[in-house]
Amino acid sequence: MRLSARVRFTDPQIELVHGAGGKAMRRLIEGLFLPRLTSPALAALGDAAVLEVGGLRLALTTDAFVVTPHRFPGGSIGELAVNGTANDLAMAGARPLALVAAFILEAGLPVAALEAEVEAMARAAARAGVAVVGGDTKVVEHGQADGLYIATTGLGLVDPRAELGPARVRPGDKILVSGPIGDHGVTVLLARGELDLEADLLSDTRPLWPLVERLLAAVGPGLRWLRDPTRGGVASALNELARDTGLGIVLWEEAVPVRGACEVLGLDPLYIACEGQFLAVVDPAVAELALRGLQALPGGAEAVPIGEVRPEPAATLVAVTAYGGARVVDMLVGDPLPRIC
Amino acid sequence: MRLSARVRFTDPQIELVHGAGGKAMRRLIEGLFLPRLTSPALAALGDAAVLEVGGLRLALTTDAFVVTPHRFPGGSIGELAVNGTANDLAMAGARPLALVAAFILEAGLPVAALEAEVEAMARAAARAGVAVVGGDTKVVEHGQADGLYIATTGLGLVDPRAELGPARVRPGDKILVSGPIGDHGVTVLLARGELDLEADLLSDTRPLWPLVERLLAAVGPGLRWLRDPTRGGVASALNELARDTGLGIVLWEEAVPVRGACEVLGLDPLYIACEGQFLAVVDPAVAELALRGLQALPGGAEAVPIGEVRPEPAATLVAVTAYGGARVVDMLVGDPLPRIC
Repeated sequence: MRLSARVRFTDPQIELVHGAGGKAMRRLIEGLFLPRLTSPALAALGDAAVLEVGGLRLALTTDAFVVTPHRFPGGSIGELAVNGTANDLAMAGARPLALVAAFILEAGLPVAALEAEVEAMARAAARAGVAVVGGDTKVVEHGQADGLYIATTGLGLVDPRAELGPARVRPGDKILVSGPIGDHGVTVLLARGELDLEADLLSDTRPLWPLVERLLAAVGPGLRWLRDPTRGGVASALNELARDTGLGIVLWEEAVPVRGACEVLGLDPLYIACEGQFLAVVDPAVAELALRGLQALPGGAEAVPIGEVRPEPAATLVAVTAYGGARVVDMLVGDPLPRIC
Repeated sequence: MRLSARVRFTDPQIELVHGAGGKAMRRLIEGLFLPRLTSPALAALGDAAVLEVGGLRLALTTDAFVVTPHRFPGGSIGELAVNGTANDLAMAGARPLALVAAFILEAGLPVAALEAEVEAMARAAARAGVAVVGGDTKVVEHGQADGLYIATTGLGLVDPRAELGPARVRPGDKILVSGPIGDHGVTVLLARGELDLEADLLSDTRPLWPLVERLLAAVGPGLRWLRDPTRGGVASALNELARDTGLGIVLWEEAVPVRGACEVLGLDPLYIACEGQFLAVVDPAVAELALRGLQALPGGAEAVPIGEVRPEPAATLVAVTAYGGARVVDMLVGDPLPRIC
């Protein structure tokens, strides 16, 4: 990525917005964490760090999960804790090998609730083909930690065919999305019961490595960049792409697959978190091949092209419509949906 | 380790004691986590999981840090988060390579407090020779997470000379400790200000890999088992050794180096957490060599032998005195010092 040398983080205290995946979080990371914890892998700011160890390319990634409520249609905090971390490995082109999990439990948590999440983790790990090889348990007093938080870390082996990163993205490249966006965020919002609305919606949480592996098999190094649009959604992920490449990212707004619930809720789907979709930048010469590869796989049938990379406008995401309208789309500002993962 | 096939965890809810490092935590792990998250590495229950990947032996370990207060004489939560995790790698005979850190921040946390901990982590990482290569930040509402929790995960490369594990421990082996025990736990207790007492004591938090590397250089596979006695202290660590080997562990109680503060406080030092000491089981033929190797290194001068392994009593820790007294020492029961790391 291009590190802006002068990001300064001068906010006096931490607020929810600093964890929302948008602008404030990026400022916190670039202004507070990066200048102090300098390392080449950290500065790359990918979903996972890639390390060369004894001739192997290893990927390492960590995520804390604090979603509330713990259970929602289609998933739970335990399932997210496995899929979210395994998917960050997949986004680095890495096959997930092993997970470790640190639990922070609130005194008073019913053991049945913990059992349910550990079982959800076990099922998700089996489905993702990854082993949970270690863990840690801390307990804090009543009133802390909302029942439980789970921090999971994944170790993966980068596929030899994977050559990913913003430096590989070129003008003319196509942008694909693996399926409809926003289901996770809207589902969690509805599960909170704050809205007088019911929708037949499920979180999209699922393992993404099988789809990524198919892409690598289909187009190898023709696959140039991957990102799962979790917190901050598609708009924030593509803004990071624009910023990290310095290029213009054009989003064909009407091509983006979205279900109806966002409109009803008055939410912009471009900012809503997914937990089982990804964005891929591919060489235009193999874009069709990549798309057909994805579509042939269970869970990939709804993959579509949603945009392209252009030389201009520099470092900017622009949404265009079929009628020629165009608007600059910024990163997420504020935090419409706290505690989404 | 020998897994008792029939551990059942029937407690209805989680309590602080389940995170204390003693009997209740072991029951939680063996009765709830292990039966659901089965993997050979997890079943080994070491401080770190050891994985074979592409001909390399990699160690992976995770820990959540929830210590309160965040700052105490000699250390802080950020420093613990680096040293504690790097030390778990060292206890697997692994040189620490990389850390990732997941932060759970409370809305309202002063940024200066976060900066101080990130800087403490950076200093500790530099001292331990390990890079922080990635991270994650979540923010939860006011009143949650006590300011901040940090979950750190470490990746290490197992030293080719290391052959460690309870299966390698034999009757006749000697047990060494790297220095005085209990300083960390007592320091944190005093820092809470609940006791009307002052002591000139510092947490012992420090990186242990240099001492372990010296041991490996001195005696190679003559080093058979390592454990840092954190939560639950020396008594719990040696009880796990007794249980995992099925052998008798004899502790020469008067040989265990302790500073004065425990006595004054009426605490049994055998149950107090250390964050910068370790227990080593060594082949008796090279015990003297191992000890001299440790003592020659800065930070190793106070290393001493504190016991030995015997065929009997099976799976039991016994403390003996110079006058021939003997008592069975159990794992920690209850939680005298919650939130110690």
